[in-house]
Amino acid sequence: MSVDLNADLGEGFGIWDLGDDDAMLDIVTSANVACGFHAGDPARLARVCRAAAERGVRIGAQVSYRDLAGFGRRFIDATAEDLTGDVMYQIGALQALAHAAGSRVSYVKPHGALYNSIVSHHGQARAVAAAVHAVDPGLPVLGLSGSAFFAAAGELGLRTVPEAFADRAYRADGQLVSRREPNAVLGDVGEIVERVVSMVTAGRVDAVDGSTIPISVASVCVHGDSPGAVEIATAVRRRLTDDGITVAPFTA
Amino acid sequence: MSVDLNADLGEGFGIWDLGDDDAMLDIVTSANVACGFHAGDPARLARVCRAAAERGVRIGAQVSYRDLAGFGRRFIDATAEDLTGDVMYQIGALQALAHAAGSRVSYVKPHGALYNSIVSHHGQARAVAAAVHAVDPGLPVLGLSGSAFFAAAGELGLRTVPEAFADRAYRADGQLVSRREPNAVLGDVGEIVERVVSMVTAGRVDAVDGSTIPISVASVCVHGDSPGAVEIATAVRRRLTDDGITVAPFTA
Amino acid sequence: MSVDLNADLGEGFGIWDLGDDDAMLDIVTSANVACGFHAGDPARLARVCRAAAERGVRIGAQVSYRDLAGFGRRFIDATAEDLTGDVMYQIGALQALAHAAGSRVSYVKPHGALYNSIVSHHGQARAVAAAVHAVDPGLPVLGLSGSAFFAAAGELGLRTVPEAFADRAYRADGQLVSRREPNAVLGDVGEIVERVVSMVTAGRVDAVDGSTIPISVASVCVHGDSPGAVEIATAVRRRLTDDGITVAPFTA
Amino acid sequence: MSVDLNADLGEGFGIWDLGDDDAMLDIVTSANVACGFHAGDPARLARVCRAAAERGVRIGAQVSYRDLAGFGRRFIDATAEDLTGDVMYQIGALQALAHAAGSRVSYVKPHGALYNSIVSHHGQARAVAAAVHAVDPGLPVLGLSGSAFFAAAGELGLRTVPEAFADRAYRADGQLVSRREPNAVLGDVGEIVERVVSMVTAGRVDAVDGSTIPISVASVCVHGDSPGAVEIATAVRRRLTDDGITVAPFTA
Repeated sequence: MSVDLNADLGEGFGIWDLGDDDAMLDIVTSANVACGFHAGDPARLARVCRAAAERGVRIGAQVSYRDLAGFGRRFIDATAEDLTGDVMYQIGALQALAHAAGSRVSYVKPHGALYNSIVSHHGQARAVAAAVHAVDPGLPVLGLSGSAFFAAAGELGLRTVPEAFADRAYRADGQLVSRREPNAVLGDVGEIVERVVSMVTAGRVDAVDGSTIPISVASVCVHGDSPGAVEIATAVRRRLTDDGITVAPFTA
Repeated sequence: MSVDLNADLGEGFGIWDLGDDDAMLDIVTSANVACGFHAGDPARLARVCRAAAERGVRIGAQVSYRDLAGFGRRFIDATAEDLTGDVMYQIGALQALAHAAGSRVSYVKPHGALYNSIVSHHGQARAVAAAVHAVDPGLPVLGLSGSAFFAAAGELGLRTVPEAFADRAYRADGQLVSRREPNAVLGDVGEIVERVVSMVTAGRVDAVDGSTIPISVASVCVHGDSPGAVEIATAVRRRLTDDGITVAPFTA
Repeated sequence: MSVDLNADLGEGFGIWDLGDDDAMLDIVTSANVACGFHAGDPARLARVCRAAAERGVRIGAQVSYRDLAGFGRRFIDATAEDLTGDVMYQIGALQALAHAAGSRVSYVKPHGALYNSIVSHHGQARAVAAAVHAVDPGLPVLGLSGSAFFAAAGELGLRTVPEAFADRAYRADGQLVSRREPNAVLGDVGEIVERVVSMVTAGRVDAVDGSTIPISVASVCVHGDSPGAVEIATAVRRRLTDDGITVAPFTA
Repeated sequence: MSVDLNADLGEGFGIWDLGDDDAMLDIVTSANVACGFHAGDPARLARVCRAAAERGVRIGAQVSYRDLAGFGRRFIDATAEDLTGDVMYQIGALQALAHAAGSRVSYVKPHGALYNSIVSHHGQARAVAAAVHAVDPGLPVLGLSGSAFFAAAGELGLRTVPEAFADRAYRADGQLVSRREPNAVLGDVGEIVERVVSMVTAGRVDAVDGSTIPISVASVCVHGDSPGAVEIATAVRRRLTDDGITVAPFTA
């Protein structure tokens, strides 16, 4: 049994840092590197790509709405043409930085509000999938199983990699509880670790309404934007390993 | 005898247009496509790349300081690390858009204040050259013969393509008269056409102080951001052809 | 009988121009000056304020979502706190520029997608109204009669000035047809002029479904972003004057 | 004997924080609040203004080049017209936020590279001074004694308030050692405290070449962007008070 661990990295901007990229690169197998539209100045992204390449951690393009002020966490009613352009642009920018670091972009994962909107917004879902396909039809996409995004990606022949979130609460319909809701983000290490094990080994997770829902998981997303988050990610990886589950890049 | 014609394209942003990209694509052999830092929203850049690809016009990455408000025409005292990151990022972004259009980025040409500053600013010149080299050491660079940029590019083994400006005044030292000076930009079609012919066939141009200076030209830059400019570019191309000079992509 | 004419001005950015501000300032009585978030670099806005002040045209703050790339025409799911901050910031910025020009900001008019969203989005409507009130409770707001924005503004004691659009199609519910729909913008001068006269004198306008709807109008919005638009605005003003209607600033 | 203590506040952006604004507001008498061009989203700035107003800390507008990516620490060769517009815009924006918080902007202090460039760049110095004067000729400016900025401000009749930096190294000519140099920023609490006392009571400070130079100080700038910095600021204030020096707003 094997599972991938992914985390968002390179999410500072200019003078501003966010999270401990180096610590997380020692934990995860896949790095969702920001692409400059919600975070990530190019020099920082180049450094993150080099650090990932040195450790053999795979690089993914974490594409976003153009929204530095909102950290990509606000829905923007972008047209399909603009969104396709924005996503192609971001993937390409990170490809150059990854290439310069001796690595490459191995997958695409939408960020924040874009991630959430294309669970159900078919027009934007198709626009993002079309962008990935236009840049490289061999790039797999990370996202939510059953989403409009996965449907659109599947239609274009893109490989889809279902992921689960270690520290986010789920609704009964399998979607994430919005960050604007209380209890959207879990904080108890023990609870998080148990959930991850349940998700990976049993394909099940408890939703906020008390129901247990099925969940398909080839990769688990952990966060690293606080000291506590690094501790949680470390605990998740240790527990998976202790349970005999191999932590390794997904094979989409 | 053969010479390349290049022009800056894709220099609108969002709702704002600048110049007549389609008209210019019918005239030039190389399109310096903006990369989003001084101009060029991704959807627009994707359209320009498609239009260039359809006509067989070669695409170059017109990289810039990060300065939409100043259209990249203001010197920014960027560090080498930031500048290298910014240039790699821009080249990669355009590579993806060009690739999606069925073409590719064939060269790099710095824009505006960056172009001017790396004539003599060795630190920034090395930073730009290093960025091009890191992304693809096979990419030639367009610029000013004798510049610090060409020296830095040459040290890294990059091919350098010297260009001349059809409608810009030159100083006796071979540099461009600043746009902030009066008479920096020539407007008379007849005079411009004669200058181009002299530059291409005799390797000489008259400087603002009345002296005649040598100039090395593998590509001539024409502008297209006004109806008059399109007319000038058309006249330049016609005169070159009439004089038996082949207008074709440079062979660096 | 009297009516105000308002138009959007200062909507270029940096090198990019949009519309003929000087021509429009000779036609309108109220200038909705951009505030930098969807358009308008400060130097340009300062020039527009001076030109408006010279002609005695009243200055309003045309506040927007933070979205240069989308020209403020895309809904952004901003939080109330962010939106209130953004609107206060924009009003204040324009107040300084208007003051430096010897004038002042006399009203506030939301732009584009923000204008449309706060017709029905109560949270954002309250956030915008709260911002205006916090900066100056004596500032009237321009908008759509019956909107959530007017309700929120009224609750805070702000004066509301209902406006109609000379060249935009209306739905039967009194809202504007989206710019993404065909026929959202009218182009026939004669038709537009007749509609304006009907709106101002009879308080009625034809909706796209053929019905005639009531409309409350203290100000008529004309556009100026094309040569044809200036012609339309001129025709509207002339016809109003010919019909004995005084074109003068609204008295809210 | 009395001296003002000032610090830079509101220098996060969106999700990114920088420094401990609340801790610093308990130490300083004047808050240089960012204005959005190098840092400071409007909602954050509104919160800082409220926090300052609650404590009776005076608010100043910390104006900058337009450079979020470079945190305003990079010289930009802006034209006088653009720079005057940018500075008026920023002051006005903060005036609205300060007013909404029940306070007002009481002074202007340029930030980072702009601060440094207008020590000697007369054109930009005049542009900044003209902006302050155009918005409110009663606003004093904080800066370096003997600077081009103070000369330009003086010509316009603006009051000038000379300041010294608690933790920055000085050159023999009275200018700051560049942040790109090693040893530009002092870190030893004891040394910093002694320097401040010497600057305030004796009007002298040791320069990096070992010489002792005169320094005129009505306000001392302390930094707050790290836990150590807050400790230093606390120590500076305590030592001044212990030595019988009143820490109070400058009276320009």
